[in-house]
Amino acid sequence: MSKPKIVILGAGYGGLVTAIRLQKLIKADEVAVTLVNKHDYHYMTTHLHMPAAGTDHHENARVAIKELIDERKIHFIKATVQQILPEEKKVVLADEILTYDYLVVGLGSETETFGIPGLREYAMTINSINSVRFIRQHTQYMFAKYKLDSKHKEYLTIVVGGAGFTGTEFVGELADRIPDLCQMFDVDPSLVQIINIEASPTALPPGLPNDLVEYGMDVMRRKGVQYKLSTAIKACEPGGVLLGDGQFIPAGTVIWSGGVRGNSLLQDAGFHVQRGRVKVDDYLRSLQYPDVFITGDCSIVMSPEGSPYPANAQIAVQQGYNTATNLLHTLRGKPLRPFAYDYKGTVASLGRGEAIGILKVKKVKGRLAAFLKKMIDARYLFLIGGIPLICKKMIFKQKQATRKRHVRN
Amino acid sequence: MSKPKIVILGAGYGGLVTAIRLQKLIKADEVAVTLVNKHDYHYMTTHLHMPAAGTDHHENARVAIKELIDERKIHFIKATVQQILPEEKKVVLADEILTYDYLVVGLGSETETFGIPGLREYAMTINSINSVRFIRQHTQYMFAKYKLDSKHKEYLTIVVGGAGFTGTEFVGELADRIPDLCQMFDVDPSLVQIINIEASPTALPPGLPNDLVEYGMDVMRRKGVQYKLSTAIKACEPGGVLLGDGQFIPAGTVIWSGGVRGNSLLQDAGFHVQRGRVKVDDYLRSLQYPDVFITGDCSIVMSPEGSPYPANAQIAVQQGYNTATNLLHTLRGKPLRPFAYDYKGTVASLGRGEAIGILKVKKVKGRLAAFLKKMIDARYLFLIGGIPLICKKMIFKQKQATRKRHVRN
Repeated sequence: MSKPKIVILGAGYGGLVTAIRLQKLIKADEVAVTLVNKHDYHYMTTHLHMPAAGTDHHENARVAIKELIDERKIHFIKATVQQILPEEKKVVLADEILTYDYLVVGLGSETETFGIPGLREYAMTINSINSVRFIRQHTQYMFAKYKLDSKHKEYLTIVVGGAGFTGTEFVGELADRIPDLCQMFDVDPSLVQIINIEASPTALPPGLPNDLVEYGMDVMRRKGVQYKLSTAIKACEPGGVLLGDGQFIPAGTVIWSGGVRGNSLLQDAGFHVQRGRVKVDDYLRSLQYPDVFITGDCSIVMSPEGSPYPANAQIAVQQGYNTATNLLHTLRGKPLRPFAYDYKGTVASLGRGEAIGILKVKKVKGRLAAFLKKMIDARYLFLIGGIPLICKKMIFKQKQATRKRHVRN
Repeated sequence: MSKPKIVILGAGYGGLVTAIRLQKLIKADEVAVTLVNKHDYHYMTTHLHMPAAGTDHHENARVAIKELIDERKIHFIKATVQQILPEEKKVVLADEILTYDYLVVGLGSETETFGIPGLREYAMTINSINSVRFIRQHTQYMFAKYKLDSKHKEYLTIVVGGAGFTGTEFVGELADRIPDLCQMFDVDPSLVQIINIEASPTALPPGLPNDLVEYGMDVMRRKGVQYKLSTAIKACEPGGVLLGDGQFIPAGTVIWSGGVRGNSLLQDAGFHVQRGRVKVDDYLRSLQYPDVFITGDCSIVMSPEGSPYPANAQIAVQQGYNTATNLLHTLRGKPLRPFAYDYKGTVASLGRGEAIGILKVKKVKGRLAAFLKKMIDARYLFLIGGIPLICKKMIFKQKQATRKRHVRN
């Protein structure tokens, strides 16, 4: 009799935590676990705004998967998933087809463009190591290009569409980076514009009380960020963005952080989706295929009040824990444990030494919030890789030359 | 009676050395000296290949002019020269018109495209701080772009047109930089191509003996440089270069170092020019306007054998010395001193720790040549700014993060 086969797709927060928990819980000969991921590293999506802005090295936002998994218990395949065949219990990769008894889908999100023309072609997104490395290079490239042809002042304008969590955290870092970029390229800082455009009437992550939002926007404005609220982007073009009111903003760099949707492979596979995401049962399983667990941005978990929880790293990590436990219970014939989201709060960084957030019901801001943000990051690193990973990514971290203040540029 | 007016156009090797020598020789009330330059810094053209490749910081290739001149003796204007009017003894700048009794033209060179279509639009050149900063950013940008769309392998191909002095020194540095770029962007080094294309049948600076050329090409090939000799570039297009034989080489980066000509302002002003350069008399004065001295890449100095000396930093510096002396002698009514070029040799860098060259008649190569190259740079820094400048640019130099080997990327 062959061992049951578990296949985990995606090594984001949900998939990786499932794998790491599972390798602690299972015996090596009990089950065959395969983890499939596009890259041979896991990256911390919540940290990507920093390498995107260039205030931290991208190396501090990722960890090699082989450093985290026990290869005696988990077989890792670096591959891009082509197709999921839930009826046949198969997953198609470029070079092979995997069969499974239980599947965990943690394939993350895709950009939601809301049908805005040109966004996919001309706007950049903060969603992978490759994409943020590109954003950083693109921004620098525009500064260098401006110095060759200084009539193009728009090369120094950076438009960020979306002032939610990711948009805000990126803009906060970017504003911190501008003085370094100006020094690096001999550019007058007064020529640089950062314009954050948001369709809804408020900036900053939703759900924060008004006074925190005001505090946060004040911090950002003092750094030079311009807000355009209640403003829709109608189209993105090679040289800038067209607003709903017909105004065209010329910009060398356009970043879109206006929204995400679930990975389209799920819809392609016949799962019923809402904006690409699949509604799951109390045990995080597909309602159509109970042998498929879905975690993270691909899943919709309903709150007891009947509204879906927002997708974020916090819930994905907890889903990973729950899924690992339920996989084990399934194998051992034990009753499954229903998923209960333990919301601990939200802290959004506003750049160097500044943040705002809510912990349970307590508001936090300023240096304390910034410190808490660091602690949240540290806690996650500890969870997946223990003290050594905290040392590597946070304490003895990769140096980012552009941030070194003492360098005369 | 007003003081005689000397105007020096350009703070390259020729103009800057003229100014620095002049301020040593003259008394403050003897003559009004004005130095006009496009930038408020002087840059060492012979060092530009390093920041272009990204193996050194551009800051180590420039010096603020105010650090070098004595403002009690030399009035500095940061401006671009619009027009020279030698009949009226005037120089037109954007915001003012200067009059002179004696003019020194050291306005440097322009790119010689030999009429090859597309070169001006799509190829980059190694000729200023701005241009090399751009080359560096462009190369990095192509690596980042490749990671977003890895079917475009041509993004990783760098074509350098011209395998003379500048082309060779750049290619040597670039080959050294590739491992760092590959690490920085997770790129397989075997995908990167550096192709140096040269119309003449030999690579490396002209005038070197065959055994040195062979040694040099061997060093370069071992670093991964591919040579295409006796090969003309027929056209440069946005995605690559078209060769004389009809072959198209797709390339994300094209650098043109195939030749330079004198600044076109001279021709515009009615000077008789050959490839933009003006033939001068024994005292480095225009044959048409003896109150105009011409130095550096704008001038043609004939050797006693009757052929023009190649334009380079070495001759320009010596011309600066001579011109300062002759300006003084003119003012004081003393006989002028004819210019005699003292050729000390040539050393071309081939990247880290490698160089080849000739000192008078002695051949040098390898580490010794690389050391001599450093000494030549140091000597020039000493000449214009003394020991403090050597310390600043060579010893306690600006750090270049991308070269730091110990950083795990």
